[in-house]
Amino acid sequence: MIVGVLGPAGSYSDKAAKGWMEKQGISDSSSLLYYDDISDTFSAVIEGKTEIGIIPIENSIEGSVGITLDLLLDSDVTIIGEVVVPIEHCLLSKGKMDDIRVILSHPQALAQCRQFIRTHFRNVEIRTTGSTSHAAKLANEFEEMAAIASKESAEAYGLNILMPNIQDRKQNHTRFIAIRRTDSETGETNTEDACTHKTSIIAYIGNDKAGSLYELLGEFAKRDINLTRIESRPSKRSLGDYLFYIDLEGSTSDAIIKDALYHIESRVSMLKVLGSYNGYQLDS
Amino acid sequence: MIVGVLGPAGSYSDKAAKGWMEKQGISDSSSLLYYDDISDTFSAVIEGKTEIGIIPIENSIEGSVGITLDLLLDSDVTIIGEVVVPIEHCLLSKGKMDDIRVILSHPQALAQCRQFIRTHFRNVEIRTTGSTSHAAKLANEFEEMAAIASKESAEAYGLNILMPNIQDRKQNHTRFIAIRRTDSETGETNTEDACTHKTSIIAYIGNDKAGSLYELLGEFAKRDINLTRIESRPSKRSLGDYLFYIDLEGSTSDAIIKDALYHIESRVSMLKVLGSYNGYQLDS
Repeated sequence: MIVGVLGPAGSYSDKAAKGWMEKQGISDSSSLLYYDDISDTFSAVIEGKTEIGIIPIENSIEGSVGITLDLLLDSDVTIIGEVVVPIEHCLLSKGKMDDIRVILSHPQALAQCRQFIRTHFRNVEIRTTGSTSHAAKLANEFEEMAAIASKESAEAYGLNILMPNIQDRKQNHTRFIAIRRTDSETGETNTEDACTHKTSIIAYIGNDKAGSLYELLGEFAKRDINLTRIESRPSKRSLGDYLFYIDLEGSTSDAIIKDALYHIESRVSMLKVLGSYNGYQLDS
Repeated sequence: MIVGVLGPAGSYSDKAAKGWMEKQGISDSSSLLYYDDISDTFSAVIEGKTEIGIIPIENSIEGSVGITLDLLLDSDVTIIGEVVVPIEHCLLSKGKMDDIRVILSHPQALAQCRQFIRTHFRNVEIRTTGSTSHAAKLANEFEEMAAIASKESAEAYGLNILMPNIQDRKQNHTRFIAIRRTDSETGETNTEDACTHKTSIIAYIGNDKAGSLYELLGEFAKRDINLTRIESRPSKRSLGDYLFYIDLEGSTSDAIIKDALYHIESRVSMLKVLGSYNGYQLDS
């Protein structure tokens, strides 16, 4: 099985993919393909270059990854699994603290370390990269550059860990999803050790927002279906017009979930079921 | 009245502040103070250096400005007004298209032009700046640099508009809020020409998510109170634990709103009322 992730090696996506593959009993790391950005990782799945893509969707400090939510809406993919990875950002460089003139990282990692950067590096130039590991790779070239990335990236690119655990909250997790092309068949996924079983949907209510979100949630509440996440996202049509990304406990093979979604479909302008799947939590 | 905004001159915040001041009958532009980032603009209000801060909170393409939502939760400020500004990003440079090696802008503007950058500048280096106008100021120094910023920034910093209107959707608006310190008194704001009248709150429900958000929304639904926005944001305690930012039509001086908030307060772990205010929409 070929799995695509945001690369290069040493990214948190890399860690998530290896963790997910191990849980699935796929241990051959040569079947991992690295891509430059999240869009390319999605495209590889849609074009059949990889069977699976492992994609970051949500971080406990900074919230959702916008591009992933947009691509889930627009692409013909199904979520078949999730894996939650503890994130410990480090400040990595070939040089010393006083040498640093430029800090490189992915925008999400920069946002997760906002207070740290503000406190220690107020006047340093900030550059964004496609991934944290790409930042580490670039920081290898100049002593005046530092990357915010994983300790695995320090090893992979010969950098020193100047400061460990620099994100603004000690507890920091990112949730990754495993996606495949909707019309493809990858067989059953392994459900041993799985700690969650959930279904993800996107609902577009349309114009009458207040009442209808309430009624939509009522379809779940009256069936005692637990929601684990609700996230609004601009529909991009106008300000104040939202899509709702909802995760719920249970599977579309459960009669009660099927019934709730059937009733919701008649209430909303658009309902997209992204998939039912199991989740794992990796250790740090 | 001294008004603080994200600077330097030519930023969209600058435009929003001037628009809001004009609506309020404050026309002296010398009372504008420019700050390096959104945190500093908040701090200036809290420390009494400025009476009012004009702060971006939400964009129709990329969604909420995370740092603003976090600061609204943590700071003792009240929202006293809003202004919606049409956003037309331009690619600005002293050089020509073929010269460009580096693109500079604020992370939100970069995200709003994601497809444009991907299509035209796949291998160009991306650097983030504290504001779009700061990017324009920097781009004035080298022909190989381009900024994504407003046409006003092109004039302010002597740059050519290489391409106008480059954001991923033609329709692009940013909503700004006017804040003051909660314990300060700025008198009545002008309500002439105001096109909205709303109240903003933050609710933290705590552990039992599904049912309680439903019940919270029910307090509004059964009183026919329209919600204009609902936005979840990580509480930063753990994955799946959210704060809800809700805007509703009406004022806390209305008996029906007062009653709804009273009942909601008893249902949630935390309720913060950010203020009741009027809004304006600027022309492009």
